[in-house]
Amino acid sequence: MSYSPGLHVLGSIHSEQQQLLSVYQGLQTFIDERLSHYELNKLGDYYHSFDNAGFTGVVCLTESHIAFHTWPEHNYLTLDIYLSNYQKVNDEKSRALFEDCCAYFKATAVERTEVKR
Amino acid sequence: MSYSPGLHVLGSIHSEQQQLLSVYQGLQTFIDERLSHYELNKLGDYYHSFDNAGFTGVVCLTESHIAFHTWPEHNYLTLDIYLSNYQKVNDEKSRALFEDCCAYFKATAVERTEVKR
Repeated sequence: MSYSPGLHVLGSIHSEQQQLLSVYQGLQTFIDERLSHYELNKLGDYYHSFDNAGFTGVVCLTESHIAFHTWPEHNYLTLDIYLSNYQKVNDEKSRALFEDCCAYFKATAVERTEVKR
Repeated sequence: MSYSPGLHVLGSIHSEQQQLLSVYQGLQTFIDERLSHYELNKLGDYYHSFDNAGFTGVVCLTESHIAFHTWPEHNYLTLDIYLSNYQKVNDEKSRALFEDCCAYFKATAVERTEVKR
């Protein structure tokens, strides 16, 4: 494989913030602000709340995608941040945005995997 | 981390099919049919074509998500299939759907990574 589009950071995150794990609207606002801060370009997004449970959110970017899936009943979420380097190298932005999301959820434990795509 | 929601299969795929890498509508139809076949539940999707280039597609599922990013100029795409096991174990469906997508794009080379979430 000659082409290497970018870095994908995958996280398994423990959080005891039931409200943050159950209601996506605050996260959606937070992500939109962070994307603006990092000069990343949102094409569209899709969020869905499950009844009496967590939510799922995917954000489609010019630079690839972000995805959240939460399980408040397990104090748990997974996070994907995958930014391609089409016009500039975004690896450090992937890592910084990952840390921002851990701070948003007040993470108490994080398992993190990096995959070069 | 005590909770383990499911399997995420990440792929870097080489394809020489310029049309398939450039136009998402055929893939969207194909994915919808495959989701029905595997009894997976689409909540919503978002596809975007770049001018004179590839496309991006994210599909939000009850069972997590699927994402495509194509670069026809590099004969290349990346693929993510992440199915959680909320009601049943979907690991084999993740792998089967991954193979279906490789067949759809007539892949000539595949690099594949599995991450247990």
